[in-house]
Amino acid sequence: MRNYRLTVCYDGTRYKGWQRLGSGENTVQAKLEGTLSKLLGEPIELDGSGRTDAGVHARRQVCSFKAETDMPRDVMLTQLRHYLPEDIGALSLEYAPPRFHARLNCIGKTYVYTVWNSDEPNVFGRRFMYAFPQRLDDGAMLEAAKLLCGTHDYSGFCSNKRMKKSAVRTVESIELSRQGSELRFILSGDGFLYNMVRIIVGTLLEVGSGQRSIEAAVLPLNTLIRADAGFTAPAHGLCLFDVRYGE
Amino acid sequence: MRNYRLTVCYDGTRYKGWQRLGSGENTVQAKLEGTLSKLLGEPIELDGSGRTDAGVHARRQVCSFKAETDMPRDVMLTQLRHYLPEDIGALSLEYAPPRFHARLNCIGKTYVYTVWNSDEPNVFGRRFMYAFPQRLDDGAMLEAAKLLCGTHDYSGFCSNKRMKKSAVRTVESIELSRQGSELRFILSGDGFLYNMVRIIVGTLLEVGSGQRSIEAAVLPLNTLIRADAGFTAPAHGLCLFDVRYGE
Repeated sequence: MRNYRLTVCYDGTRYKGWQRLGSGENTVQAKLEGTLSKLLGEPIELDGSGRTDAGVHARRQVCSFKAETDMPRDVMLTQLRHYLPEDIGALSLEYAPPRFHARLNCIGKTYVYTVWNSDEPNVFGRRFMYAFPQRLDDGAMLEAAKLLCGTHDYSGFCSNKRMKKSAVRTVESIELSRQGSELRFILSGDGFLYNMVRIIVGTLLEVGSGQRSIEAAVLPLNTLIRADAGFTAPAHGLCLFDVRYGE
Repeated sequence: MRNYRLTVCYDGTRYKGWQRLGSGENTVQAKLEGTLSKLLGEPIELDGSGRTDAGVHARRQVCSFKAETDMPRDVMLTQLRHYLPEDIGALSLEYAPPRFHARLNCIGKTYVYTVWNSDEPNVFGRRFMYAFPQRLDDGAMLEAAKLLCGTHDYSGFCSNKRMKKSAVRTVESIELSRQGSELRFILSGDGFLYNMVRIIVGTLLEVGSGQRSIEAAVLPLNTLIRADAGFTAPAHGLCLFDVRYGE
């Protein structure tokens, strides 16, 4: 029995998110597990670094799995690339230490949310960018973004109402990067709650478009009330950009 | 009756090319004409700067049309953006001089062909790049590319066997631009024959991957025989990048 570390990317457009839900569900995890199980002739269960919502993309998602197979690693990778659908890509496959677990060992993640800030249509980026044509004040958004970083209870920025575990997370940085009409929000932290990145981005867009003050953007860190935060920015603008491990 | 100049972009993936073929055909021209005719309540016929093949994209395609309507130009543009499908975008709409004709007045075009030159999958670029994993000699391709420029009879680089008109064209430049695994061929000229860009790129890729000498790449300029040139690179890597008018 060997332990593997698999790095994948995916265009999440047609999937119901990362996590396998039941049998026959169209999720990235189910598709990867099905392909690996068929390829290796043994049932494979994957642990991902974390879930992504329906429609969210990943540039680098890391997962781990155990397998009995003798198939060489490079053959497995080539075969996997061959059998996966064109919207899921296997980037690398490595042997991992026996105790490596993609979710438990993950120490940080970076998400990128991309906004197309123009009223000109963008037919090429439309699957990966949220079209938000209103004029945006990048300076105000950046100021609010800085105040949203740190170690806080982020339950005011979470859609899951029945969360029992701690909602305390550390957001290390929220950066803004603009190239013309393309605006990227780059969020790094030790972990993010359900919909947290999308609600933070929605709140910042309300600040940028003058619908919300900087004070009102930060309020949910104190009240912990979801309704005090902004709208949930749509899934298709979000991409899990990178996952970090303490190696 | 007013004359208009409309600039559009499109993701050509699901279209049978630019040109309207008959009724009910799924072409970009038919979709634009149908949308404009409904919007203005009068039958609209578009002239494009030229055709693009099935599956080919356009970053900037220019077309002209005449209409009786009194609808203000900015309203027409906003409405057009509203009613067009998400894979066709209206970039600008201007009043044009009465004699302006998008095809007849066009003096030059630039096409970009994008190759994903890696065996790592690229799920995000897959609709707009041709995955060609073989190692490529950019220097050899550039050398051949330079020899393919100039004013020549390009019928050896054309798929249309029954062409009656002149096949003499001027290719002003063929540039190569590489950013990591993303390789772009940038071709500018006064006009291109049917499949000409794709055959030139296929021929250059054969040079780059060592399957063809530089001499053999240039041979069809003398023999005028299609079979002497390389393969036709697939449509989805090609994009009409810009169209020039003598203003």
